[in-house]
Amino acid sequence: MFRELKIEMPEFEKVEYKPKPVREILLEMKNLSELMIDLAYSAALFNDKELAEEVLELEKKVDTLAYLLDMTIMIAARNAEDAEALAGVAKVAGATDKISDAAADIATIVKQNIGIHPIVTKIFEQAEEHIARARVDEKSVMVGKKIGKLNLTAKIGVDIIAIRRGRDWIVKPSDDEKILADDILIARGTPLGISKFRDIAEGKIKRIVGVKDDATAK
Amino acid sequence: MFRELKIEMPEFEKVEYKPKPVREILLEMKNLSELMIDLAYSAALFNDKELAEEVLELEKKVDTLAYLLDMTIMIAARNAEDAEALAGVAKVAGATDKISDAAADIATIVKQNIGIHPIVTKIFEQAEEHIARARVDEKSVMVGKKIGKLNLTAKIGVDIIAIRRGRDWIVKPSDDEKILADDILIARGTPLGISKFRDIAEGKIKRIVGVKDDATAK
Repeated sequence: MFRELKIEMPEFEKVEYKPKPVREILLEMKNLSELMIDLAYSAALFNDKELAEEVLELEKKVDTLAYLLDMTIMIAARNAEDAEALAGVAKVAGATDKISDAAADIATIVKQNIGIHPIVTKIFEQAEEHIARARVDEKSVMVGKKIGKLNLTAKIGVDIIAIRRGRDWIVKPSDDEKILADDILIARGTPLGISKFRDIAEGKIKRIVGVKDDATAK
Repeated sequence: MFRELKIEMPEFEKVEYKPKPVREILLEMKNLSELMIDLAYSAALFNDKELAEEVLELEKKVDTLAYLLDMTIMIAARNAEDAEALAGVAKVAGATDKISDAAADIATIVKQNIGIHPIVTKIFEQAEEHIARARVDEKSVMVGKKIGKLNLTAKIGVDIIAIRRGRDWIVKPSDDEKILADDILIARGTPLGISKFRDIAEGKIKRIVGVKDDATAK
């Protein structure tokens, strides 16, 4: 009924048991595994090893959450009725873990340089949207700004779909989320937009054309 | 290197070998499996057996595509270099199949009435967006209209994310796609919007308020 414990468990830095509602853990697992699939396909199709690395980072996070969820479920079940209903949750979580493993499989292919046949990648290069990662340089105009204020969607056609901050992930960040130096941003947009986005994050472009509050830029 | 053949293969109506580019098959598998995940979670969280059925329908389709892809890859590989590059594609397809299986696992839980603990479903009920399916009645004002013309996004806050037409699936249909009687529409939107959407598809509401060309409605 519960997932098998992963062999790589000792890799976890610390799996501290912090009580957290079952629904929150499951929702987080769902969001992270969906992000993993998005990133994994992009990594494979554009042979992007950096994205592949992020997928493998995400897998560790999902594994940790799966472990935390099992513990929480065991503690939450107080009678047979509870146990039955929670078994359903455990199964959904198990399937989520399987999804995350499959995404990690794809990422591993990319890391191992197995490669994808050019006839496949060609069509995707022409696809409208790319996904890319960028690390925010301390000199970037993004530092300390809220995502909503940057207005990247309107200005350069790019959406930040996730932020990795150290070992924490913020999936579908809100407009109020502030960007910090050293954040890893995962963004989706047109190839041109993504290229601009990278330069802005890395501090190579100091003005996001049209953004009103870019007076802070040198 | 290649996926194991599924035991349930005899269920396929006919797996006719029609030559199709590898990239197209893989892209279709990717889109269908992503749709499956979306539908599977919605099915689980809202205990929606109809959505669960659609997920299982989609799995059959993905299985058929996986089989077709294996055949195509075998035929396409003409030398060692080809074979190596195509092995990568086969692995990505294998992972996609695994994702689709996991989504089907979730759907099976829903069908078997195992259920999800109420503490989990509660939060999702308050979530902004729902996913639902609706069959287009022959008397619906939608019949024969292009999606773009219906303007559902602006009018009722609902997006059609997929259409099932018999055994065919149209994922992310374009604005030019015409809706036919008996289409199964999968839509995403606010709870209120989705409820209106169902009534429109089933022919209970004859006017989509604000849509210019609803003069055809009785």
